[in-house]
Amino acid sequence: MDLDALDAADPLAPFRDRFALPEGVVYLDGNSLGALPRATSAAVAKAVAEDWGQNLVKSWNTAGWIDLAADIARDLAVVIGAEPHELAVGDSISVNLFKLLGAARSLRPERPVILADKRNFPTDLYVAQGFAGLTGLGLQLVETPDELAAAVTAGTALVMASHVDYRSGAILDLDRLVRAAHDQGALCLVDLAHSAGVLRVDLAARDIDMAVGCGYKYLNGGPGAPAFLYLAERHHAAARQPITGWFGHAEPFAFEPTYRPAPGIRRFQAGTPPILSLVALREGIRIAAEAPIEPVRAKAKSLTTAFLTLVDQHLGDQSFTLVSPRDADKRGAQIALAHPDAYAITQALIARDVIPDYREPDIVRFGFAPLYLRHTDLQVAVARLATIMHERAYDQPAFRTRAKVT
Amino acid sequence: MDLDALDAADPLAPFRDRFALPEGVVYLDGNSLGALPRATSAAVAKAVAEDWGQNLVKSWNTAGWIDLAADIARDLAVVIGAEPHELAVGDSISVNLFKLLGAARSLRPERPVILADKRNFPTDLYVAQGFAGLTGLGLQLVETPDELAAAVTAGTALVMASHVDYRSGAILDLDRLVRAAHDQGALCLVDLAHSAGVLRVDLAARDIDMAVGCGYKYLNGGPGAPAFLYLAERHHAAARQPITGWFGHAEPFAFEPTYRPAPGIRRFQAGTPPILSLVALREGIRIAAEAPIEPVRAKAKSLTTAFLTLVDQHLGDQSFTLVSPRDADKRGAQIALAHPDAYAITQALIARDVIPDYREPDIVRFGFAPLYLRHTDLQVAVARLATIMHERAYDQPAFRTRAKVT
Repeated sequence: MDLDALDAADPLAPFRDRFALPEGVVYLDGNSLGALPRATSAAVAKAVAEDWGQNLVKSWNTAGWIDLAADIARDLAVVIGAEPHELAVGDSISVNLFKLLGAARSLRPERPVILADKRNFPTDLYVAQGFAGLTGLGLQLVETPDELAAAVTAGTALVMASHVDYRSGAILDLDRLVRAAHDQGALCLVDLAHSAGVLRVDLAARDIDMAVGCGYKYLNGGPGAPAFLYLAERHHAAARQPITGWFGHAEPFAFEPTYRPAPGIRRFQAGTPPILSLVALREGIRIAAEAPIEPVRAKAKSLTTAFLTLVDQHLGDQSFTLVSPRDADKRGAQIALAHPDAYAITQALIARDVIPDYREPDIVRFGFAPLYLRHTDLQVAVARLATIMHERAYDQPAFRTRAKVT
Repeated sequence: MDLDALDAADPLAPFRDRFALPEGVVYLDGNSLGALPRATSAAVAKAVAEDWGQNLVKSWNTAGWIDLAADIARDLAVVIGAEPHELAVGDSISVNLFKLLGAARSLRPERPVILADKRNFPTDLYVAQGFAGLTGLGLQLVETPDELAAAVTAGTALVMASHVDYRSGAILDLDRLVRAAHDQGALCLVDLAHSAGVLRVDLAARDIDMAVGCGYKYLNGGPGAPAFLYLAERHHAAARQPITGWFGHAEPFAFEPTYRPAPGIRRFQAGTPPILSLVALREGIRIAAEAPIEPVRAKAKSLTTAFLTLVDQHLGDQSFTLVSPRDADKRGAQIALAHPDAYAITQALIARDVIPDYREPDIVRFGFAPLYLRHTDLQVAVARLATIMHERAYDQPAFRTRAKVT
């Protein structure tokens, strides 16, 4: 395996220079917090000092703050295969999911059940639980996403799942799920947190009804960046959402006492959006829109495959279990390795400037962001991991103390 | 009226230098978007370049991102007279109000009515409408906030109102409203958007049950800054909120499939917060916490009184009608003047570097942020307004074209 040759032939190599990466660090956690685009510092500094500081409230018009979310939607649409007017940028995944559950209820008012699987990202399950509790809908949970298609019935209003499993990286068969949902007249909602920006998503072509996604992972929008939601245009006329804030009103600055939903997707906006965080998000998504998805996906497969090969070579004697699919076509841009000492191993790696993350109960999770990682970085990462394992360097109390955020 | 003497005697004068104000501009719209604190540029730049760019995901622990909302709550508590553990910082007013309406329903499950008045800020009414529509609760609207106290009944779950009217600046008699609510066993929710930072709020002392408030007005947190909510401690054990995202879970990083609310106020968090916007908000609220509320309130009265005196002197011959209370004790830090040409007059003022805002249907609204305005600024503002009026300089097509944001 000639890693140098793979890097030399990488059509995405120039993208690395668009990011401000720390010297000497191998960053394998772009699936938790994406790296900083170089352009973001200046964009945010301008928004603070000039647009806010000097032009103050005028910037809602003159700096285009009022259109910022819609501007971002234009680039995002390219990334995930939707039309800009099907995307609402803002709020968190949790809040956006709540809105879409409300929309699903308005679109399928006679159907009493939301269907999900226990491996979905927890906040998705929590929000569905909260929405069900408030409205009296039922929340039916199956064990794995593979069981979802068979569990859809004529009582299912909505089936929801993650495109890529946040732990294992396994890719869901979306086409099968959409077909199963639509065969029963149900809606299908997909969480794109771990696929937007690294996988061909193609929301429209796949006939997906709804989606939510995250700005701070592969879209490099910054810590806690605003999220987004997607609603297929065919549902716009009939869909209502329950968090009816003024930014979703037909005429927010008419200050009418009664809510009138804006036409189209804008009714999914709620309150005033956090502009500084949106300014940062715009820079990240702009880069993602410039990177054609085919080479991005090919490089994700190449990076994860090279990493696994190195792990097999150098760590075959250690008690790691591969949690991710071995078939590169079946996994996203991440590799999950289970180990009884996963937490301490993660901390020992971070102490040596290789940054993965830990996921309960026993997983070291490695993310491979194709826009700024090189194949040769993986050699460094696995070499340091091998040293840590062979020297049992992770076996220290300091590495076992749980931080607040893992 | 010796405006120079008033400024010379102003104990808050040193605060002006904490803000980066544009040269030559009289900014009378701090009640829409507060000015930029000088410290914010550096704080945001560090958060972007160092915490995000260099330390990446580690900053959730090492830069304290996970505690940022709670840190801000400590300063905010000083400003509005609450305990830090009664405040949740994040999301927008719209989303926070939705959460609190859910909490009210969990605290008063047998009561079918939310009571509000038509003069409340529109997003409050819209969100109540959406929540009522989703849950089957009734929304009872009276015409003015003065009618609320008499309208509370044994069927009222919650009465909600703005502390300061966003148009007129009139201060609501909170004590009367709280008494009326509690006499009937109802809860009282107050919107502090136009009072936090300029008025003694004293949530705890006044026995207020719930509140929401805005970070981007007198708290100078930046465009679309995250908002906050307050829930009195006595309600914490029983209150549930419906947007049950992972940041409100008892153990977010345990990744459990079932939602367990965090103890106390943290259950009112939903999704991952927008860190860059929170970093900016922290700087603004820090300054507000340093400014004792008594001189702030005294200066707001002095500024609005001086402005009205100048208006009477120089514009008595024009068709302005005072919409705000003439009694300084009954108004917040703003003056609203109605005029048939209010929109064009507002634009003409902005073109001459005096910045108020326009509110439907015919109001020029002037805000007086005590931390960075001087009495002498008012002389400049009124002189320019007088020139505009006497020369009818506002009577131009360009000033009548409505911008997206007014």
